[in-house]
Amino acid sequence: MAENTDATELLGRDASRELDDVTEPDDAFLIASEQEQSVQAPRRALVVIVTDHPDDAAQDTSRLAGELLAEADFTVDGAVIVRSKKSKIRQAIETGVVGGVDLVLTIGGTGVGPRDKTPEATRAVLDQMVPGVAQALRSSGQACGAVDACTSRGISGVSGSTVIVNVASSRAAVRDGMATLTPLVHHLVDQLQKSSV
Amino acid sequence: MAENTDATELLGRDASRELDDVTEPDDAFLIASEQEQSVQAPRRALVVIVTDHPDDAAQDTSRLAGELLAEADFTVDGAVIVRSKKSKIRQAIETGVVGGVDLVLTIGGTGVGPRDKTPEATRAVLDQMVPGVAQALRSSGQACGAVDACTSRGISGVSGSTVIVNVASSRAAVRDGMATLTPLVHHLVDQLQKSSV
Amino acid sequence: MAENTDATELLGRDASRELDDVTEPDDAFLIASEQEQSVQAPRRALVVIVTDHPDDAAQDTSRLAGELLAEADFTVDGAVIVRSKKSKIRQAIETGVVGGVDLVLTIGGTGVGPRDKTPEATRAVLDQMVPGVAQALRSSGQACGAVDACTSRGISGVSGSTVIVNVASSRAAVRDGMATLTPLVHHLVDQLQKSSV
Repeated sequence: MAENTDATELLGRDASRELDDVTEPDDAFLIASEQEQSVQAPRRALVVIVTDHPDDAAQDTSRLAGELLAEADFTVDGAVIVRSKKSKIRQAIETGVVGGVDLVLTIGGTGVGPRDKTPEATRAVLDQMVPGVAQALRSSGQACGAVDACTSRGISGVSGSTVIVNVASSRAAVRDGMATLTPLVHHLVDQLQKSSV
Repeated sequence: MAENTDATELLGRDASRELDDVTEPDDAFLIASEQEQSVQAPRRALVVIVTDHPDDAAQDTSRLAGELLAEADFTVDGAVIVRSKKSKIRQAIETGVVGGVDLVLTIGGTGVGPRDKTPEATRAVLDQMVPGVAQALRSSGQACGAVDACTSRGISGVSGSTVIVNVASSRAAVRDGMATLTPLVHHLVDQLQKSSV
Repeated sequence: MAENTDATELLGRDASRELDDVTEPDDAFLIASEQEQSVQAPRRALVVIVTDHPDDAAQDTSRLAGELLAEADFTVDGAVIVRSKKSKIRQAIETGVVGGVDLVLTIGGTGVGPRDKTPEATRAVLDQMVPGVAQALRSSGQACGAVDACTSRGISGVSGSTVIVNVASSRAAVRDGMATLTPLVHHLVDQLQKSSV
């Protein structure tokens, strides 16, 4: 097992998948391997801040999201700030998908104004919708009084093996949203990794 | 500030929007202005009761909805009772949109019977869907035991600068629905007014 | 009233519908008749287990679902296990619809893997979507920690006079799902029966 672990460390996620395929390991091994996995290969996330005002507030939001993702075992690969233009948002999301991150998290642009285009840009990239994450964000937004989260037009789904989630932009929406979405995203990434073995 | 307030009182909502645009007012002013706004210009609502039995019960529902909307700072422009026919429902909603009301609230016609056509009629009028309001209505309907609210096919969204929401017809659905939807609609109208400045 | 009851017992549900149509009975009769109805004619359900591994676990799930449905006044007409192939799932659902069952309950195939095709197969059969049941399943899945229920892509709706609901496959999802969906399905079936009189 020590050997497996080393190989996994050297070769990364794909090697670990192949090793899983060989035999049906016992429960103790699975638990150990899961613990190692979460230590060895935290999930990679890209944060996309959508705003027409790339000011300090946007930087603050980005920092907050990064911290909360790190607490939930995600490594933030990067954070980009894009203007609220459909093509720009889509391009930023696709960069994450092509780069093979596990999660692209967009923040902002989910309201009903003419400049709110994040759901439309996201829809164009998704292979399949997973309405449960967006639903959970609205629902917990309602419970915690984040009215922009509750009325968010944000969507969630999968593109390739990347989960994509739209979050509203208030600090309450981001703070509450991270707590809500991270366990769900981990579950979805588990499924995607298992099926891509 | 006293001058601004007077101008706002004389010229109504549009003037208040323009004034907001000029400078970045301090918090105290914003709070004061918000309080004035809710006193000066309550949001306008149109209630559309959809039923094939325009009897006393329909009148009661209309009255109940009107009272609850008034409590939540909406002025009810009018209440119409229409037959459950797609064209009639659509026409009633469009009257509200063209008339510039902030909220068109439909009640009834959200079930699974052959005469339940409110969601389809509403869909035809919407510029964009805002699934969060309909979700919140179903969710709080579930919590309070209003099973027709929980299984409602009702939708919610925006047409022009009017928010449109479908509510189920039981008294529990209306009572609980008003409490759930009014803060969300106020938030959406805030956004729509800001973006139309 | 004793006569009506006998007729209903002899002729079943259809007779009871006709009788309802004749006059406007008083509340006491309606309550009594409702109680009789739930004793006389429990709703019929078909369980469709979707899995590529038709093993003991699938049998267990089927048994669990059957027990919980029976507790909620459904008679399980049958339980079939089908491979996760869109055509097979659709065929199984249609068998239930054509057979006139009140509920087709599918279990499994609601995730994001390449073999998860239950929502797509179901969509093809539905006359109208009833998003509230699927929403309630995700919401109560979130509350009880059934993460596969919460992230389920499952849908719900009506085909003819049959309600169709997709449930995720974990035991927690099935156990919690049954408690959540049965009262909602009873309400929908009530509506469908009333409208088909």
